Amino acid sequence: MIPKPYLLFIGEAPDELAIKTASGVYEWRPEWCAAQYAYSEAKFHLDLPIIDFETATAKGIKTMVIGVVNAGGIMSEKWKQTIIKAIQSGLNIASGMHTRLKDIPEIKDAAERNDISLFDLRFNEQTFSTGKGIKRSGKRLLTVGTDCSVGKKYTALAIEKAMLDNGFDVEFKATGQTGVLIAEQGIAIDAIVSDFISGAVEWLTPDNKLNHWDIVEGQGSLFHPSFAGVSLGLLHGSQADAIIVCHEPTRKNMRGVETPLPSIKDCIDENIRLGKLTNPNIQCIGIALNTSNMSTDPEELKNEISKLHGVPCFDPLKDDLSNIIVKLKSI
Amino acid sequence: MIPKPYLLFIGEAPDELAIKTASGVYEWRPEWCAAQYAYSEAKFHLDLPIIDFETATAKGIKTMVIGVVNAGGIMSEKWKQTIIKAIQSGLNIASGMHTRLKDIPEIKDAAERNDISLFDLRFNEQTFSTGKGIKRSGKRLLTVGTDCSVGKKYTALAIEKAMLDNGFDVEFKATGQTGVLIAEQGIAIDAIVSDFISGAVEWLTPDNKLNHWDIVEGQGSLFHPSFAGVSLGLLHGSQADAIIVCHEPTRKNMRGVETPLPSIKDCIDENIRLGKLTNPNIQCIGIALNTSNMSTDPEELKNEISKLHGVPCFDPLKDDLSNIIVKLKSI
Repeated sequence: MIPKPYLLFIGEAPDELAIKTASGVYEWRPEWCAAQYAYSEAKFHLDLPIIDFETATAKGIKTMVIGVVNAGGIMSEKWKQTIIKAIQSGLNIASGMHTRLKDIPEIKDAAERNDISLFDLRFNEQTFSTGKGIKRSGKRLLTVGTDCSVGKKYTALAIEKAMLDNGFDVEFKATGQTGVLIAEQGIAIDAIVSDFISGAVEWLTPDNKLNHWDIVEGQGSLFHPSFAGVSLGLLHGSQADAIIVCHEPTRKNMRGVETPLPSIKDCIDENIRLGKLTNPNIQCIGIALNTSNMSTDPEELKNEISKLHGVPCFDPLKDDLSNIIVKLKSI
Repeated sequence: MIPKPYLLFIGEAPDELAIKTASGVYEWRPEWCAAQYAYSEAKFHLDLPIIDFETATAKGIKTMVIGVVNAGGIMSEKWKQTIIKAIQSGLNIASGMHTRLKDIPEIKDAAERNDISLFDLRFNEQTFSTGKGIKRSGKRLLTVGTDCSVGKKYTALAIEKAMLDNGFDVEFKATGQTGVLIAEQGIAIDAIVSDFISGAVEWLTPDNKLNHWDIVEGQGSLFHPSFAGVSLGLLHGSQADAIIVCHEPTRKNMRGVETPLPSIKDCIDENIRLGKLTNPNIQCIGIALNTSNMSTDPEELKNEISKLHGVPCFDPLKDDLSNIIVKLKSI
């Protein structure tokens, strides 16, 4: 468990998606988030006070959480100095970066000298087996996407919440660093050695009671040339009984690359086709529309998509999920 | 470069596929392989003298290569003691296991005390980017499979050889530990952090001269529930212009799991469908039939498969590859 409350580090915050770890933790665990730390050039901010380290420790803040993506995966000298300063001020550090804090000698030394804990959330001491593909008991829902960063985690969390409200035996299963921060459990699946992707997901969603649901946070997209392998391993490992396709209707092309977006229909069909390898009964039960960037009224689009695909279309953060609850009760 | 010649360690050699690293190195680099080291319970052997460590060093053997899979990925106490004995006898050790030799304290200590080198082939100091999916110059052929261990590496090596004989500018690109041992270059892709599968393959097969061919060793199968994610990342990262489907006709179900084998047609279609994401011109140019376990004459089966799919069907280790060379010249 990471000591709370948190100071969310958003650094240069170059765009809204770059700070999605910070905004995700703040959205789902606002009670843990006391303030943010931003550079003067930050283009986006959270709705939290911007404070320095001295103020943070005076306010009783315990941990600085790295809530922004580091460009190119390399830690800049500026970030390093900021983190060391935070440590010297008495803050623990939590990070979901691919580079371990503990592997950066100056940070490790500073933490040891100041008796500070470093939390590398993307890493896990667990040893996994390769996937077996054998059908497990219990039920699993996986959120999949037409792209990265379209709302797969938010959808999974919203569905878990609605299911809890409706008396289901249900658990959110985090598969990314932000999800792990929110749920305080799970695996950052993109940091797992590739031989063990599906095996790690099998470990994460083991045999369970027949009416238990695991709501598995999806990653990437089968149509994203950087991450499709991870998405496929997740699909096979989770043996999803149900998928929900997540879509961001204002997105022009796949995040970070030049590949065009697939249609919602292609995304449903491909996930169903490939998912059948480990669960022949896989079905798509809904489409989650991330309407946060839409400038027009989303109602018409949701109705159109729902009609076209024959399943409910909803904004998981704004709409009532009773249609999905009905679908889930029937599985 | 690993000091040669080699002593191939095959341990308990529980089945023929378990020693495929040893047999692969011996098949393709017989001049490097002087002898084998086997336990008394070994069920399979190579056609090489079985010797002890004293004899090995007396014969001038420089390195013991771990040529057998360790069950469950865990190094047994017996193996550990054997490796330490080999080190004490003056042999370097090369291993493609997921567990690093350097991470086993007793082995690391023994190597340091005896001034011996440890080669962990599955690991790579290279830092990769995530895949970009941008079309690169030059041409690439990828061997894909209906299953694991059906001959993807042998097919790639046989095609490289035939292309070299026919004056092509061509290079075999290893993606597994045995391939890395044979080629003394490449990446064990199954040990790469899963976020970087396709990015690592893009790095391995970079922009090149227009008529240059990379022959990329495939891994796993899109239909294998343990490894499909790796296979998909390889397909997307390699942007294959041509695929060859490798098949073992006596196999009953997927290696190590209970999943049934796909048909050759399903394997062609799925690779073409998914491969189009990064190369719309991907085509299947042949089917490599691993006939080594067939008890009947394979000619009829090869003719039948070739007719059914409209491409040459051949045993890469036995047949003339001129049909494939003609196909490759036309791309």
